[in-house]
Amino acid sequence: MSNGDIFVGEVIGTAILILFGAGVCAAVTLRYSKARASGWVVIAFGWGFGVLAGAYTAAPLSGGQLNPAVTIGIAVDTGKWDKVWVYLLGETVGAMLGAVLAYLVYFAQFQANVRKESTTEGTADEPVPTLGIFSTIPEIRNPIANLVTEIIATMALVLPVLAFGLTKGLGESGTTVLIVSLLVVGIGLSLGGPTGYAINPARDLGPRIVHTFLPIPNKGTSDWGYAWIPVVGPLIGGALAGLVYNVAF
Amino acid sequence: MSNGDIFVGEVIGTAILILFGAGVCAAVTLRYSKARASGWVVIAFGWGFGVLAGAYTAAPLSGGQLNPAVTIGIAVDTGKWDKVWVYLLGETVGAMLGAVLAYLVYFAQFQANVRKESTTEGTADEPVPTLGIFSTIPEIRNPIANLVTEIIATMALVLPVLAFGLTKGLGESGTTVLIVSLLVVGIGLSLGGPTGYAINPARDLGPRIVHTFLPIPNKGTSDWGYAWIPVVGPLIGGALAGLVYNVAF
Amino acid sequence: MSNGDIFVGEVIGTAILILFGAGVCAAVTLRYSKARASGWVVIAFGWGFGVLAGAYTAAPLSGGQLNPAVTIGIAVDTGKWDKVWVYLLGETVGAMLGAVLAYLVYFAQFQANVRKESTTEGTADEPVPTLGIFSTIPEIRNPIANLVTEIIATMALVLPVLAFGLTKGLGESGTTVLIVSLLVVGIGLSLGGPTGYAINPARDLGPRIVHTFLPIPNKGTSDWGYAWIPVVGPLIGGALAGLVYNVAF
Amino acid sequence: MSNGDIFVGEVIGTAILILFGAGVCAAVTLRYSKARASGWVVIAFGWGFGVLAGAYTAAPLSGGQLNPAVTIGIAVDTGKWDKVWVYLLGETVGAMLGAVLAYLVYFAQFQANVRKESTTEGTADEPVPTLGIFSTIPEIRNPIANLVTEIIATMALVLPVLAFGLTKGLGESGTTVLIVSLLVVGIGLSLGGPTGYAINPARDLGPRIVHTFLPIPNKGTSDWGYAWIPVVGPLIGGALAGLVYNVAF
Repeated sequence: MSNGDIFVGEVIGTAILILFGAGVCAAVTLRYSKARASGWVVIAFGWGFGVLAGAYTAAPLSGGQLNPAVTIGIAVDTGKWDKVWVYLLGETVGAMLGAVLAYLVYFAQFQANVRKESTTEGTADEPVPTLGIFSTIPEIRNPIANLVTEIIATMALVLPVLAFGLTKGLGESGTTVLIVSLLVVGIGLSLGGPTGYAINPARDLGPRIVHTFLPIPNKGTSDWGYAWIPVVGPLIGGALAGLVYNVAF
Repeated sequence: MSNGDIFVGEVIGTAILILFGAGVCAAVTLRYSKARASGWVVIAFGWGFGVLAGAYTAAPLSGGQLNPAVTIGIAVDTGKWDKVWVYLLGETVGAMLGAVLAYLVYFAQFQANVRKESTTEGTADEPVPTLGIFSTIPEIRNPIANLVTEIIATMALVLPVLAFGLTKGLGESGTTVLIVSLLVVGIGLSLGGPTGYAINPARDLGPRIVHTFLPIPNKGTSDWGYAWIPVVGPLIGGALAGLVYNVAF
Repeated sequence: MSNGDIFVGEVIGTAILILFGAGVCAAVTLRYSKARASGWVVIAFGWGFGVLAGAYTAAPLSGGQLNPAVTIGIAVDTGKWDKVWVYLLGETVGAMLGAVLAYLVYFAQFQANVRKESTTEGTADEPVPTLGIFSTIPEIRNPIANLVTEIIATMALVLPVLAFGLTKGLGESGTTVLIVSLLVVGIGLSLGGPTGYAINPARDLGPRIVHTFLPIPNKGTSDWGYAWIPVVGPLIGGALAGLVYNVAF
Repeated sequence: MSNGDIFVGEVIGTAILILFGAGVCAAVTLRYSKARASGWVVIAFGWGFGVLAGAYTAAPLSGGQLNPAVTIGIAVDTGKWDKVWVYLLGETVGAMLGAVLAYLVYFAQFQANVRKESTTEGTADEPVPTLGIFSTIPEIRNPIANLVTEIIATMALVLPVLAFGLTKGLGESGTTVLIVSLLVVGIGLSLGGPTGYAINPARDLGPRIVHTFLPIPNKGTSDWGYAWIPVVGPLIGGALAGLVYNVAF
């Protein structure tokens, strides 16, 4: 695969991943969305099928890694580091592009994120904080615990991927991509409770940059104080998974 | 494939798609349905498995495109336009047929769509508007924003389909169809919030025509003022996806 | 396949199907169940994965039809009727066995189906009617409409199965069975609202017989007046699907 | 496969299974979890995708049985008992490791499991009992009925696995593992209501040991009086499934 193909593949694939992922968070969070308040199962499946859509599309060009933690895990296992920078660059650019696309899909909803005067029930709806649509926010702010959560959750992604996954190609008709996407649904359901499961540095950092600059009404903080955890945790988790795989398998 | 096979395949396949899709909207919307108010996750999976059922059935005859946006996207990419009219005709006729079938499945429920006098709790149930069972309605009426939503959501369908999907056939035992159907579930979960994700001109136009003529009690408006957006948006999105695919892949 | 293998396969497979199907209805309906009131999505996936489990198990012995409507549809299409009686017998016996197994799994819950005295909130829980765990009950009792619902819903099952499904075997590693099971999930989500989607005469009749004789406290009516519709409707739907398939494909 | 590979594979695979399974129970149960109170469908899919992740990872090393009931069922059917002890040991150690990992992922949530003073609504949140995150608890305590539930539910797992599953390998790209994981989702939805579906002695015993020793605030009882049922029931169920398979197939 040429550097150009890898870059284009990772940009398109990661953009689609984040379009679906930020999209489903917008769908569940924002007022005037048909999916409002439809719950955690919708979040988890939305992100998982974003992996399906993105990896499925990127596969012919770049293999569809879409996640620096996966890229690092493969590099630690195989010892091949020369293409890593192309993957990381494509993934980060793609994540930013995807966040912008999700913003455009929910543009009217974001514009309507203002105080709504009290209804007949006597309550007023306040604007919702919007960062959670773009990036992760911990339920309990505890750097060590949050880091451990992200490390373990990322290992639970990268170890199966290494053991049977993307490194062996798409599989016949893309079955491997399907299984990896359901694995991501499972991580969301099971391990997403404490931190919102970044498990992907690009998935968190790219959209956070975009959130900082987008002119969203009442958007609230971009919370840069937390931003290092969903970058460092998944990178450690991916590298550890590469080590474990290399030793155990 | 002969024109006759294509036409019959697209009619049957699109009819099944709309039977499931309009069916699940009826199931969640109408009084006296066991699935009433069961939420967005049911809507999204119902439509997705409608794609599974319809494309699976149509595949041996027509390849199972079931969607003018997919047909246009393939034509833009391949440059082959001579069969396009057969596909579009079959898809539109099939969508109308499917809407009638869904109406028949929920016939008793539609007939019962009348004012129900107040119960012991002191509240009265009003008839529900029925257009949302057949066609899409935006949460916020904003033509440009609605059009952008439909364009991006359709690209998120057609680009993966072109990259790895229907153009390469069903895959062994239909795995490709399964993945495309889960992709449609994902689009519903993630990108359906603002407009209800037509992403398919036939899916919206055919049932809207049927809704206009069916003798449903208290059916409410067929909202023809909005009808061009879920036709034009998906067509633009499909064509753009064909262009992007042709350039990038 | 020998008659003995077919009979044993259909008994075991249909028993597993009904164990899961009646099981999930018990899980959602009965007091003291962890899944109580968990909604329609649980019902639909529970039945669908019952098809997965049953057909997957029966496949090596009998092909895993598990449903007289499928058996009739295949016979109408292929013209081969000599084994039909073995399938029908196995499916009916299996459905009865499965209903007994589901009863045993939820034995303590069924025994606890008695009036529970008022709690601190001042309300008393009444016993729940139990027929809905075993057999289907229409939301609106209208024989013609109920029959039409069952006919169309069964066609939506049998036509895809004929077009690409069980008649071609399990597919590599059982992919075909997986797709048929998700098809059944979709039928439940989309078309189950009015009548509870029997779409299988054995699935309704066998458990209704069992319900009639089981010593369940406060079990309520077995509603034999409705029993012909979920038998006749699916048989007509299966035969029609066989005819449509034979003509169109 | 060497004893070392089997042991390492079963430890890693079962650890991942329990990480996901105990994780999803923590996600739904604990305060300050984004998935709190998201319902039974989340529990069932979380456990099922834990099977996917664990078996997918363990498959190249040990075949990914992850469950003594499956191991016993295969041994009863094949008559090969010499490796059984390695599997059982790996599964039990892995289940304990997985429970510790889940505890670490939800560490901050477990630490916050204290009485929360009354909010503006005037109610106080009490600490939640934590055993249900690690091991199963019956809804109605009835040893015979609970045992029967576990026996039948385990047979519904092991019989399909024997008929078409793990014994034939992973299948192309892991389709078989995918199907088994959805089978486990189905068992959870349909048969989990009475006892919480251990269907795996290691899954219940290993985490119960860990729960006994972990320093969780307000953790409540480890309920050792019930502990024999989710061990004995699944072992009987697995052996019975091996017998039935051996006779019928």
